[in-house]
Amino acid sequence: WSGRLQIRAALDGQVRNAGVSRYQGLSNQHLNLRDSGCPDRGLLHLLVETSQSRLQVAQSARLTLSRRGEPLHAEPTAMAEPGCCAALYEVDVAEGVALCVEKVLALFTSRDTAISECALESRKAATEAPDFATLADSHGRIWSHLWQRFDLQLGHPGREPDNRNERILHLHLFHVLQTASPNTMDLDVGIPARGLHGEAYRGHIFWDELFVFPMLNLRVPEITASLLRYRYRRLGEARRAARAAGFRGAMYPWQSASNGREESQRLHLNPQSGRWIEDHSRLQRHVSSAIAYNVWQYYEVTRDLEFLSFYGAEMILEIARFWADAATYNEHRRRYDILGVMGPDEYHDAYPEADAAGLNNNAYTNVLAAWVLCRALALPSLLPVERYRELRQSLSLEPEELDRWDTISRTMFLPFHDQGILSQFEGYERLSEFDWEGYRARYGDIQRLDRLLEAEGDSPNRYKASKQADVLMLFYLFSAEELEELFARLGYAFPPETIPRNIEYYLQRTSHGSTLSRVVHAWVVSRSDRDRSWELFTRSLDSDVTDIQGGTTKEGIHMGAMGGTLDLVQRCYTGVVTRGDTLWFNPALPAGLSRLSLNLRYRGHSLGVWVTPDTLRLSAAPGGAPAIRLGVAGQVHEVAGGETREFRLHRRRRATPP
Amino acid sequence: WSGRLQIRAALDGQVRNAGVSRYQGLSNQHLNLRDSGCPDRGLLHLLVETSQSRLQVAQSARLTLSRRGEPLHAEPTAMAEPGCCAALYEVDVAEGVALCVEKVLALFTSRDTAISECALESRKAATEAPDFATLADSHGRIWSHLWQRFDLQLGHPGREPDNRNERILHLHLFHVLQTASPNTMDLDVGIPARGLHGEAYRGHIFWDELFVFPMLNLRVPEITASLLRYRYRRLGEARRAARAAGFRGAMYPWQSASNGREESQRLHLNPQSGRWIEDHSRLQRHVSSAIAYNVWQYYEVTRDLEFLSFYGAEMILEIARFWADAATYNEHRRRYDILGVMGPDEYHDAYPEADAAGLNNNAYTNVLAAWVLCRALALPSLLPVERYRELRQSLSLEPEELDRWDTISRTMFLPFHDQGILSQFEGYERLSEFDWEGYRARYGDIQRLDRLLEAEGDSPNRYKASKQADVLMLFYLFSAEELEELFARLGYAFPPETIPRNIEYYLQRTSHGSTLSRVVHAWVVSRSDRDRSWELFTRSLDSDVTDIQGGTTKEGIHMGAMGGTLDLVQRCYTGVVTRGDTLWFNPALPAGLSRLSLNLRYRGHSLGVWVTPDTLRLSAAPGGAPAIRLGVAGQVHEVAGGETREFRLHRRRRATPP
Repeated sequence: WSGRLQIRAALDGQVRNAGVSRYQGLSNQHLNLRDSGCPDRGLLHLLVETSQSRLQVAQSARLTLSRRGEPLHAEPTAMAEPGCCAALYEVDVAEGVALCVEKVLALFTSRDTAISECALESRKAATEAPDFATLADSHGRIWSHLWQRFDLQLGHPGREPDNRNERILHLHLFHVLQTASPNTMDLDVGIPARGLHGEAYRGHIFWDELFVFPMLNLRVPEITASLLRYRYRRLGEARRAARAAGFRGAMYPWQSASNGREESQRLHLNPQSGRWIEDHSRLQRHVSSAIAYNVWQYYEVTRDLEFLSFYGAEMILEIARFWADAATYNEHRRRYDILGVMGPDEYHDAYPEADAAGLNNNAYTNVLAAWVLCRALALPSLLPVERYRELRQSLSLEPEELDRWDTISRTMFLPFHDQGILSQFEGYERLSEFDWEGYRARYGDIQRLDRLLEAEGDSPNRYKASKQADVLMLFYLFSAEELEELFARLGYAFPPETIPRNIEYYLQRTSHGSTLSRVVHAWVVSRSDRDRSWELFTRSLDSDVTDIQGGTTKEGIHMGAMGGTLDLVQRCYTGVVTRGDTLWFNPALPAGLSRLSLNLRYRGHSLGVWVTPDTLRLSAAPGGAPAIRLGVAGQVHEVAGGETREFRLHRRRRATPP
Repeated sequence: WSGRLQIRAALDGQVRNAGVSRYQGLSNQHLNLRDSGCPDRGLLHLLVETSQSRLQVAQSARLTLSRRGEPLHAEPTAMAEPGCCAALYEVDVAEGVALCVEKVLALFTSRDTAISECALESRKAATEAPDFATLADSHGRIWSHLWQRFDLQLGHPGREPDNRNERILHLHLFHVLQTASPNTMDLDVGIPARGLHGEAYRGHIFWDELFVFPMLNLRVPEITASLLRYRYRRLGEARRAARAAGFRGAMYPWQSASNGREESQRLHLNPQSGRWIEDHSRLQRHVSSAIAYNVWQYYEVTRDLEFLSFYGAEMILEIARFWADAATYNEHRRRYDILGVMGPDEYHDAYPEADAAGLNNNAYTNVLAAWVLCRALALPSLLPVERYRELRQSLSLEPEELDRWDTISRTMFLPFHDQGILSQFEGYERLSEFDWEGYRARYGDIQRLDRLLEAEGDSPNRYKASKQADVLMLFYLFSAEELEELFARLGYAFPPETIPRNIEYYLQRTSHGSTLSRVVHAWVVSRSDRDRSWELFTRSLDSDVTDIQGGTTKEGIHMGAMGGTLDLVQRCYTGVVTRGDTLWFNPALPAGLSRLSLNLRYRGHSLGVWVTPDTLRLSAAPGGAPAIRLGVAGQVHEVAGGETREFRLHRRRRATPP
């Protein structure tokens, strides 16, 4: 065909947030046009301002037409369209001769650093940008660098290589790195629960970062530091929230956004019943402990004392202070309670017949609170003396308060039932067993049991049925030794052999209504049941790629599950634990894996890790950083840059580092 | 007196930049009103937007009236004033009863992190802020923390304590910390030449930070890291500038502002003659080397490999690349030249009879360029292998280019005259001697000789007369050993005994037209002439406190001179040098000092330093950081947290560390 071709190029300032169908009835137009020019010196321009936050976003686009590598000069006609900058190009095309159309766009916001004014910068960048091929080259190079730093490779036993698992892990890696990378290190951003991929939760930040940080920590820890500063900048708002709720210290919100205030909804819709239900998820106070945990993990990997001094310590101290103030003394049992909260399991937000929301002594919450208090008490021995003195003065920390923290960290109450089963919360044992078989038979998919029960006029609050890991989160976050230490400090016997019983108990009572759940379960059974771990792991891999929840993926991928599956390979199946200035390894490949290799970064060293069922090989790249301590099978080895160590693995070995 | 009192409270959106009288004829109103409310729920509000950069600034003020500690409720009347938000309060006052008026103001900008919208945040903050006494308390506490970290104390010999010098140093410290402190670490800001104090140079950033960073490095190095990131963010613009000038690599501007483009004026006014003169100061390309030097100094003090990896190395490599490309091969002498630049001395911008601006082979510029090339060549042995590989690929660094850098770093030309005097630039020796006596007799103050000569139709370009240290900057930045190494690599003999001759030569030919000049001279004579060093040092202290230049202080204090005087005490008189993983000390108190004590921070340690003419005491505060290496009189001592070492000082000692 030969003839005249019309090409319409536009910048659209009328974009609406219309990606989540059940949000359609709510306000979804957030942009006001401030300026547009179409076309002006070969560029299209658009400057919009967000309606509430007054954030400016400028775009400039350069359209280039060419034929056989020769530029084609076509004078565009401006097209009048409301809130939109559009231009029409008309070109004669001839059969068999390709026409090449390149649209190169530059975007700046008023929050970018090193700018004069965002519209000016976008014009300059669009004008000066090289052609598509050059841009694609540099894009590819940056991705190849990320890939080298983050890659992991799997081998499968006894069959031809099936790369499906590896490909899904790479997809997960792609989404994690789209959301947080060296490119975001200089921005005031966190890890939204749905990445930058979809509009569900409106970009809000939950505790999900807990599942993403460990993977980043051991690859490019500077990314984690930057994400933690996002939380640090919102410490003031967390203090304000604690104050408003009548507490001292810092209480981070369950859903966090722009300025760090609580953004959780108070009502949510059950599409099953069409009813609006009260939403108490903000009672998940454990999010603050997750932040303290993330700070600590980052510190363990990097020993970045400057970060701890200027940002981390203050967060830990203020979160500890919150827990100490939120805990109430129970005269009867001479222990401290934490009352009226929710654990990670969102099926339970109240006692069956209660008027008010909230549960007492959620085991996960209480253990984490005690752990945070221990970390806060350890800070004086870690921080430079003058920095700790500054913090003590700025926060008005008195010796009596620290004594109280110490007491609570030793006498927090933990509920148990059935001889050694840690109760999800106090009174859990009085709930009814749930008819899993019956409901599965009736509904098939019962992941969102809460919605099914509510539609029936019932409530999961009545049953021993969890949406996701709650007690079992403890075995995900802590090694058996760490838990033993914590429980011993609290005066509870908790021998390691109790752990498998607890795991079995809750595994049987979980619907996996959260994508995070299978990740945690695959993790906690990795040592006791290699087949089940593999099955849960591969099922976790399916979360988004097959839209396991039937419709939530198009609203945005699940960042926690994606980070978590990567971390399962990186830390769980290698048995990596960072503790006591040592990087411990204790590999346990699941049934479906015959080989695993990846690169870690630890205290200035790049470490190649290569695992088979029999062998662990660790190889430190040449470099000038001080030697590191690597622990294998209870032994610590000093390893310097350029050295390689190989270890025979035995069937029976210590479960975790001493 | 008793009666009715009117109190007018306002937020003024009509503020002009009118602090520098010779800028009065230029545009000086930069704010557009976007919103104001007066009063609204007890607050005054003002939201303005800067006219060019569209930066929003929101203020909210809370006015509280009280009598005898009891709040007084007075309903204000709004006052209509253009671009201003004002309210009138009327109160009855009675003789002998104090009325207390508190105005508490909160200011946010659209560039602040962790905000929803700046006007909203300022309202919230002004509403919730505590009373004046509480605010003043916390303000005082923060300052006392800064004071503890930065304090230095002087003792004077043989007389009653005269605290004048100490008080001026504290004033300098105050201004440095007003400009850069932990409060600015999260902002995209640099060190403006006049601090945040006055409007001269319109807040632009010069090389002056070179005189401020060393002091910050050894107290709170995280501040320096943040200020260096300001430069890193503008690396793209420095690359653009190099490209525009026909060079590869990065060419930082002499005057930098918002987006990092060159902001230097092309004409300036000589108030002496009333004429507008061409301004070639942008030819001071050495500013890029100063940035590389600052990166290196920061790294030497902290060994912050992550900073070097992600920010510092790329700057050093791109600046090295610029110098290698700017250097041209001189067939005749088989060495590399750098042509057409200006050195630090601003009296010389061209050869006397030349048509074009620029001088050839400015010694300072050439030595620094060779030094930058050496630092760039050292990076592969310092950086993590994968990071260096990434940089090599991203920057397309080929082995041939590195070979060329190596060659140039060994064959850069340096001009000499009069047997061992390093010429300020090639051909300097052909200039006429200046009639210092005659001009001093005629004008008294000849600091700004350039203006006097221009008014006479003459030019300093004709004379061996410098405004400020140029060649001597080398002895300020480098130890004798470092210089010897650099010169040896370049194939020039430069025995240490030549240094005093060079110093004497240029000291006699300098008018001190820059406040930086005396700082440098006090430094370079500190070992050879303790009386003169003291005299120059105390004269430097006067720069702003007595407005030594007759009128420039009210346009803004001189940040470089302030930082430099502090650094004279901190590094020069203690002989502190950071080199080769060792912190060297070699105290040499000037004539006017009998004692010196201060606290340094080095690689995670807090180090008390106490110096008398006979004794050096070093005391590391308890802490867990790895032991550090302290060098005294050629010996290196490993010192751990909690240890104190004392050294007897001898009259004759090594001039500088080996």
